Amino acid sequence: MGSLPLDALQPLDPDTFAADSSAVIDFLAGYYRDVDKYPVRAADLEPGRLRKLLPEAAPEFGEPAERILDDVRRDVLPGLTHWQSPSFFAYFPMNASAAGFAGEMLSVGLNVVPFMWVASPAAVELEAVVVDWMARLVGLPDRFLFSGSGGGGGGGGVLQGSTCEAVVCTLAAARDRALGRIGHEGIVKLVVYASDQTHATFQKGARLVGIPPANFRVVPTAAASGYALTGAAVRAAVEGDVARGLVPLYLCATMGTTGIGAVDPVRELGEVARRHGMWLHVDAAYAGAAAICPEYQGYLDGAELADSVSMNPHKWFLTNMDCCCLWVASPAALTAALSTDPEYLKNAGGGKPQAAGAAGAIDYKDWQISLSRRFRAMKLWFVLRRYGAAGMRAYIRRHVAMAEWFERAMSADERFEVVAKRRFSLVCFRLRCGGDVMNRELLAAVNASGRAFMTHFVVDGKFVIRLAVGGAMTEMRHVRDAWELVQRTAEQLLQRRV
Amino acid sequence: MGSLPLDALQPLDPDTFAADSSAVIDFLAGYYRDVDKYPVRAADLEPGRLRKLLPEAAPEFGEPAERILDDVRRDVLPGLTHWQSPSFFAYFPMNASAAGFAGEMLSVGLNVVPFMWVASPAAVELEAVVVDWMARLVGLPDRFLFSGSGGGGGGGGVLQGSTCEAVVCTLAAARDRALGRIGHEGIVKLVVYASDQTHATFQKGARLVGIPPANFRVVPTAAASGYALTGAAVRAAVEGDVARGLVPLYLCATMGTTGIGAVDPVRELGEVARRHGMWLHVDAAYAGAAAICPEYQGYLDGAELADSVSMNPHKWFLTNMDCCCLWVASPAALTAALSTDPEYLKNAGGGKPQAAGAAGAIDYKDWQISLSRRFRAMKLWFVLRRYGAAGMRAYIRRHVAMAEWFERAMSADERFEVVAKRRFSLVCFRLRCGGDVMNRELLAAVNASGRAFMTHFVVDGKFVIRLAVGGAMTEMRHVRDAWELVQRTAEQLLQRRV
Repeated sequence: MGSLPLDALQPLDPDTFAADSSAVIDFLAGYYRDVDKYPVRAADLEPGRLRKLLPEAAPEFGEPAERILDDVRRDVLPGLTHWQSPSFFAYFPMNASAAGFAGEMLSVGLNVVPFMWVASPAAVELEAVVVDWMARLVGLPDRFLFSGSGGGGGGGGVLQGSTCEAVVCTLAAARDRALGRIGHEGIVKLVVYASDQTHATFQKGARLVGIPPANFRVVPTAAASGYALTGAAVRAAVEGDVARGLVPLYLCATMGTTGIGAVDPVRELGEVARRHGMWLHVDAAYAGAAAICPEYQGYLDGAELADSVSMNPHKWFLTNMDCCCLWVASPAALTAALSTDPEYLKNAGGGKPQAAGAAGAIDYKDWQISLSRRFRAMKLWFVLRRYGAAGMRAYIRRHVAMAEWFERAMSADERFEVVAKRRFSLVCFRLRCGGDVMNRELLAAVNASGRAFMTHFVVDGKFVIRLAVGGAMTEMRHVRDAWELVQRTAEQLLQRRV
Repeated sequence: MGSLPLDALQPLDPDTFAADSSAVIDFLAGYYRDVDKYPVRAADLEPGRLRKLLPEAAPEFGEPAERILDDVRRDVLPGLTHWQSPSFFAYFPMNASAAGFAGEMLSVGLNVVPFMWVASPAAVELEAVVVDWMARLVGLPDRFLFSGSGGGGGGGGVLQGSTCEAVVCTLAAARDRALGRIGHEGIVKLVVYASDQTHATFQKGARLVGIPPANFRVVPTAAASGYALTGAAVRAAVEGDVARGLVPLYLCATMGTTGIGAVDPVRELGEVARRHGMWLHVDAAYAGAAAICPEYQGYLDGAELADSVSMNPHKWFLTNMDCCCLWVASPAALTAALSTDPEYLKNAGGGKPQAAGAAGAIDYKDWQISLSRRFRAMKLWFVLRRYGAAGMRAYIRRHVAMAEWFERAMSADERFEVVAKRRFSLVCFRLRCGGDVMNRELLAAVNASGRAFMTHFVVDGKFVIRLAVGGAMTEMRHVRDAWELVQRTAEQLLQRRV
């Protein structure tokens, strides 16, 4: 494991590989043992700290793995925000697991590139199988499966890196279908719809594919509908645009918005989308994981009216970054917008079978933005095999129960109010008095303590604090500690005020 | 490591993590020991084979890691095309290494999300440092560095997943800069330029960002210029478009084309691009790795006239998938097209320092398509530290020397011709007689043998076979074996013909 002489660089020598990798495993096992001792949010918030510690240029000669790991421990760890800390409650979880890690190691170690079927048949087929497994687990209709209950489902899925990629690909599919009808100059007439709760990546994605920013409709939501879109509001917006000669293109519904976990009514929106020939996408990035439990599948009622659905196993499904499932009802619409067929990929030297279009022989490069891609299926497959559907359901329910406990504790303390209904593992709350200023101070003090990390949102003009439960190591005691920390910090702020 | 009871799912229990991970390390070390025993291209080319072996639905209960690994060995490995085989000469290399793997494990295990500075300061800063290191290694001008030799370089870099992402982001930046001037309806007037050798992902990227397919100019190249773009040809195309009232937007130059490894003259093209206000991107996906050796840096002469440059350490730089360096001269142009600022990310709960714009405090979400992102810097940093610049140069030169040997052997055999000049580690050749039919047969037979995997291209209407050297385990004997295999197979075909 020492430094390597130049003439003997053997980058995949099995013994060096095993020795270096074992050192990393020990490092990470130690990290998991100690992770709750680190301040959750990076303690050192001085920009440029790490740059000052590192040389201006890469080293000329190689170094042993241990020396690099020592530097990671000394220089890098203190500057990280620890997403795997059991007291990380910020944003949405991005949880890791031994199984997600093992699957990713296999994928990274095999380092095959399943961009075309022939370039790694089994990797492509495992992906097609595992997206079908996930579709069944979350209760999607057969139309999103390669292999439906009565044979071919007609649709299919792909593993991408993020919801934004999924949105860009489906927007491009919808756009090209529309432009095929009205001509490319019609691009300035295309309108997309979302709510004021929809994730910002949707707006970014729409802009990326050339939709004019002026044609991005933000439909307002209100407390009365639980901050969900209503069919009536979308219909009104669409009809106004149609009357002005514009072309409704795409509607994004969300199961579990980022701000407060709101759920848009899929069936109601699907009917509006159908009537106006719009593509309906359901973004279930975070809360889609909960739909593996029957008690949450009602939120996807009406999904048969959607054109595409996405959810991120890398958020709340124990699958290390990155992994986003995108299912489409019409693979042909997707590949029409995304396929390329250059000479150097044709038939891969005569090896591609005649039955290229047959079930399984998918060229996933035509289902995504990039040509190259990682073997993500191995990771999701490993998680599903290692923990099983029952294990994953128990895991999701445990997090929901912890969030419920936090919500109850908060509701019983008259100094606080819970803002918006909790549906999954996200609780939004604020101090009743002191206004936004004191609530901002509360959050800043909680985060500065290093004992927990939460983020915020603004609902109806009010600053609210978000606590999202979902860490792989988060247990009841961490949620209880977080509640005590919030209480104690609030007390100090309120006393100071008196 | 057995199956897990439901109430005790401890997904990051350090002991289970270490045990499962060690089993995977053993599996992979064994795989590297045996990889040259597998047929390089998947032996079993029956679509749907794996699907038939797997159940229709995910298992209800978890299983031990060993059982899953047994299934990988039995069901998955025989269906893979082995990109890490020392006899994989297809496409371009996607090479792996112990260091790339170790760095990726750290990234996957820490599982932090450096999408904003506060969300993982040290991960963001390591990325900014390591892209500067790479820029210096390949000899880029200071304008692409965060930290130039005389202080701030004014530019900067980011690690993305693929060249296609880099192209989409820079196209969006160029497009929005132009539309700011001419209005969004002008999108139908924007024209992009590439050669008939440019990678197909450029056309796909241009289409993704809304450039009309009719405005994609494919400038022809010829043997006389080594299949490179010429300033004159680009100028003629641009002037024709300007005369028709169109707006030249973006020119893509390539260092090392996919088909035959051609190199476009950056300075000459940069001058044309400047004159017409076009964005110039230099795609050095594969051959950029060679530019760490001074003898190849001349190919990037004129890079100070470019707006962006990209290269993929995941191709020929021992960095496991995925890792693409994108450098831009004007980060502001990039972030103007890609930034979002939703409430739930503002200040991350009051934690973001005032000096947010200062060196190091970068919000990388505004430099790429997606919001979320992986800690790719750890991987590239580990490779550079573990092997050093000198080690990497020796490694690149060894591959070039092997390709040179193959080219010489081929040139000495009058039955073959080497097509197009070899510049890096890619050799293109064909049988002189028998036409495309026999060359296709030759490639098919070589690949069917399982002893090597190559792909093809078409130059000037002729089918040529590509041999790209670059595997981490590829040694002289594998290249010699490949040559003997090609010779032996050709002999059989030629004899049959007589």
